[in-house]
Amino acid sequence: MSRSITRHQVKMILSLQKRKVREENSLFIIEGDKLVREYIVAGNRVMLLAGKPEWIDGEQEAVIRGADEVVTVSYEELRRISSLRTPHNVLAVATMHKRQFSDGLLRDRLTPVLECVQDPGNLGTIIRIAAWFGIENIICSPDSVDFYNPKVIQATMGAFMHVSVWYRPLEGLLSTAAADGIPVYGTVTDGQSVYDSPLGSEGIILFGNESKGISEGLLRYVSDRITIPGPAQPVAGLESLNVSMAAAIVCSEFARRGNRQQTV
Amino acid sequence: MSRSITRHQVKMILSLQKRKVREENSLFIIEGDKLVREYIVAGNRVMLLAGKPEWIDGEQEAVIRGADEVVTVSYEELRRISSLRTPHNVLAVATMHKRQFSDGLLRDRLTPVLECVQDPGNLGTIIRIAAWFGIENIICSPDSVDFYNPKVIQATMGAFMHVSVWYRPLEGLLSTAAADGIPVYGTVTDGQSVYDSPLGSEGIILFGNESKGISEGLLRYVSDRITIPGPAQPVAGLESLNVSMAAAIVCSEFARRGNRQQTV
Repeated sequence: MSRSITRHQVKMILSLQKRKVREENSLFIIEGDKLVREYIVAGNRVMLLAGKPEWIDGEQEAVIRGADEVVTVSYEELRRISSLRTPHNVLAVATMHKRQFSDGLLRDRLTPVLECVQDPGNLGTIIRIAAWFGIENIICSPDSVDFYNPKVIQATMGAFMHVSVWYRPLEGLLSTAAADGIPVYGTVTDGQSVYDSPLGSEGIILFGNESKGISEGLLRYVSDRITIPGPAQPVAGLESLNVSMAAAIVCSEFARRGNRQQTV
Repeated sequence: MSRSITRHQVKMILSLQKRKVREENSLFIIEGDKLVREYIVAGNRVMLLAGKPEWIDGEQEAVIRGADEVVTVSYEELRRISSLRTPHNVLAVATMHKRQFSDGLLRDRLTPVLECVQDPGNLGTIIRIAAWFGIENIICSPDSVDFYNPKVIQATMGAFMHVSVWYRPLEGLLSTAAADGIPVYGTVTDGQSVYDSPLGSEGIILFGNESKGISEGLLRYVSDRITIPGPAQPVAGLESLNVSMAAAIVCSEFARRGNRQQTV
């Protein structure tokens, strides 16, 4: 029998809605039976599982044993601690995996770099896209939305386990990459068509902020300006694609070229 | 001087959150200064503009004159009638444009067909993608989310003006198309790579429900099963791409082929 969640635990979980608290404690939240199960089955331990009693009773032993502590919650308690509109049976508190970044991570692979992306749904979607195409790392400017924001984790639909997201000042990163001869592809509205551009299997793919695009300061490090061709004439309401759509299309086009290289 | 919004108007606007009421009255809601302005500037009249006094005073004459009636709202009133978390200055009540569907609309062009897509954000995103690539029509099964849902209109970011969305029983539509020799491309998890598939400039591109994919009943009308290649081995949390991501990538690949035809 598991005991009920304590007031202290409720308070701790609620405090993890804040980025600062998450970072100070190296803790974050995973919600929903599917995500929590996948996370533990993939070999990760969690600090705390807070589940509905019937979920805990029905769940496979291996998942329950993946937690240091298991507590029961009523539906009302789950609603209170959840950041979802419709909470799904269980919430887990997990420990961040901290690793050391090195510039070598940029070698021999493609790495999306996001400047000041603000919307949790966009970051989550881009992580899912990256994972789909076998991309291992994403680098964000420090002022981008936090990877461990519960809405980001949720929007990845599980893909957050397969991609490492790093926060780095981009000016230094891009100037080092440029000096090392690593191509910096920049998605802009007036570049060469991505369909006709030479695309390699190594490089940074830089995406700008949702409304402002890539800043002037970073544009100067861009070696290849690429664009997804849209309307031939400017059309009101169709100035650009959403950043996560652009990432889907651009990553797909890089993958297609790689694909051709393998199959031809 | 505009007069203040009436209680009756508040009630009418709130009632338009319901699909049934929207359809009975052929009315829908557009929110935010950018969207409302673009809609009117594009030549559409609206029945009612409910704006903050300072917005009405500052807005260009042509926009204000595009409304049959203009009323002022306080920020609190706007919050009450808005479906946005952060309402933007103005809300408009507009009239649906009703037109007659004909099977001829499927000829000589690409038409995404959505089976039971539920999420307003997904439909809005797919509309935006379609508009970007010059696609004129989208057809949805009758049980799909409503085009005139305020969250759909919002998610299109203005693209809703450039794409016609139709609701049709899909069984009849697809069997007619198949009989007429119109290709039916179906996005599935075990088809031919979209990068290697022959893709024409005429056809239906069928996308399935967010969790269930394309139903068995409709799969039999699919002439070309296409897949976006993902992980070589099945990976937990990466079973498929979100439907709007898939639409972005597939529509981009169709556009790329068309693009090549034009430029080569």
